[in-house]
Amino acid sequence: MSSTGNNVTRLPTAREPSLKPIVDLVAQDMNAVNAVILARMQSQVSLIPELAGHLIAGGGKRMRPMLTLACARLLDYQGNRHHKLAACVEFIHTATLLHDDVVDGSGMRRGKRTANLIWGNAASVLVGDFLFSRSFELMVEDGSLRVLRILSNASAVIAEGEVDQLTAQRKVETSEQHYLEIIGAKTAALFAAACRIASVVAEQEDAVEEALDAYGRNLGIAFQLVDDAIDYVSDEATMGKDVGDDFRDGKVTLPVILAHARGDEADRRFWRDAMEGHRVSDADLAHAQSLIESTGALRDTLGRARHYGQLAIDSLARFPHGKARAALTEAVEFAIARAY
Amino acid sequence: MSSTGNNVTRLPTAREPSLKPIVDLVAQDMNAVNAVILARMQSQVSLIPELAGHLIAGGGKRMRPMLTLACARLLDYQGNRHHKLAACVEFIHTATLLHDDVVDGSGMRRGKRTANLIWGNAASVLVGDFLFSRSFELMVEDGSLRVLRILSNASAVIAEGEVDQLTAQRKVETSEQHYLEIIGAKTAALFAAACRIASVVAEQEDAVEEALDAYGRNLGIAFQLVDDAIDYVSDEATMGKDVGDDFRDGKVTLPVILAHARGDEADRRFWRDAMEGHRVSDADLAHAQSLIESTGALRDTLGRARHYGQLAIDSLARFPHGKARAALTEAVEFAIARAY
Repeated sequence: MSSTGNNVTRLPTAREPSLKPIVDLVAQDMNAVNAVILARMQSQVSLIPELAGHLIAGGGKRMRPMLTLACARLLDYQGNRHHKLAACVEFIHTATLLHDDVVDGSGMRRGKRTANLIWGNAASVLVGDFLFSRSFELMVEDGSLRVLRILSNASAVIAEGEVDQLTAQRKVETSEQHYLEIIGAKTAALFAAACRIASVVAEQEDAVEEALDAYGRNLGIAFQLVDDAIDYVSDEATMGKDVGDDFRDGKVTLPVILAHARGDEADRRFWRDAMEGHRVSDADLAHAQSLIESTGALRDTLGRARHYGQLAIDSLARFPHGKARAALTEAVEFAIARAY
Repeated sequence: MSSTGNNVTRLPTAREPSLKPIVDLVAQDMNAVNAVILARMQSQVSLIPELAGHLIAGGGKRMRPMLTLACARLLDYQGNRHHKLAACVEFIHTATLLHDDVVDGSGMRRGKRTANLIWGNAASVLVGDFLFSRSFELMVEDGSLRVLRILSNASAVIAEGEVDQLTAQRKVETSEQHYLEIIGAKTAALFAAACRIASVVAEQEDAVEEALDAYGRNLGIAFQLVDDAIDYVSDEATMGKDVGDDFRDGKVTLPVILAHARGDEADRRFWRDAMEGHRVSDADLAHAQSLIESTGALRDTLGRARHYGQLAIDSLARFPHGKARAALTEAVEFAIARAY
């Protein structure tokens, strides 16, 4: 993605950071995870694999299970319990996406029509419930109460964060602190849990669990902040989601919080009106983009993202250099670089 | 409820069967369960306890946790693990009710406006997710993988049954066998699990688990069939739900399946039209009631319910006579007698 139209300076890297190293690192393991996913989303009720498959096969990056697998590699784990557990993480994520799209009334995800648009809200809610339950069944098969604790807690925190965001919806006065709590819950908690469970299966000490949790959590926040920024600068072809979705949905994200706080009387009125749903034209979106640009809100949202990205990278300091650590580090750089 | 307007003969009982014996049996335990429920539905996100409390405090019979407690009594269990686990069961049930009301677009439940009507579908979906996750957190605290297996499996089966019912919706040719599978999954599975986990905490042999599972499962089916029947004979004051809800929603239940199968050409056309949503007037409902009456569909739906009720009662044969067994037996008789 080019930086045309914003004043952010490109990071000085020799080449574009990419997900290729982490994808390559876990490629074989990911085949095993995909086999578990395919096998365990089956049901004699054919609508379930049909609907779930639409989303699961639909070109997601499998970011969260990839993190479980890469962290297991980092710890030189030799077993295969992480395949089933990575599938659990993807099931939980898919369930939340299905429910999110119902909650937001979304029509597009990953460049495809959403399940709720094709099969209706009812089916999306129920298949989400199925995947969520199936995920717990898989965890029980694995048999680790510690993993069950981590993922059931993450699931409760995610739901709490989603409700919190719903409450904050359209409230342009949401503080940066409150917003960070929301994304810490709704996005970063599952990233953290995905990384953390690798330490459990590899039977590492608590400090390792905590380091991987910190890696995942900070990466998750960075990822979300960059997503928030991209909504105001991207075009549809790049992202596979509608440009200005967050804006038109009245989603108060960090770029909006900063632009509103830094704006004059007229700007603030604009943001209030926009978040309340009264500014949904293309011209309004263009004006929003220009305010987010001119107030430095875009630059500084990405600055915050880089801050959390750096925390993620630093939390890997205790681990030996090598392919896995390099791949996890570059995944952070990739998350940030998407916005440039 | 009187039997006016239907040709079902009242069971010859000395007095009306009631839930009083089982309610009394577990009254003290239920206070402990309610304390767990209240404590564990809290969240700093205030909408969560607000919305959950509306339903949880809203006059439900607490049938499922009551079964866990009564079965524990039957086994003379002396500990208190069942308090937390009964709360888990109620959380799972509440989560499914919240999602059900979204799926069905219901406006009334237990004589009150539904949560989705007051707070919207999005909040109901997400608070349901929260309660579901919280339920698993509580199970993990208890620490029994066997309980986790039973309840995660029940949850997956419930969701599967709900999707199956969605698929069968408005299809008047659904077979009785298929319909029994649907309610076996969406209703009876949680009744069975609620009873079964009492055997796990009381550390009983597998045969005891199976007997209690059979009790709960058969009671659940009987309960659902009676509910199905009541939708065609009750009035609003009795049930706290709108009369003819199932009929107007195009829900194909056993009374409809039987009346359709036994009807002539014109009747079948009526049922097909009705289930497809083209017969929603009061006159249509009255006609439906008269067909269900005249074909014996009501009588025989209740006959099926009595059959499953008898199976439930017989599955208690291995347990000692006493207050608990008598209360569990009368709970079955109550479930059936509601329709008379």
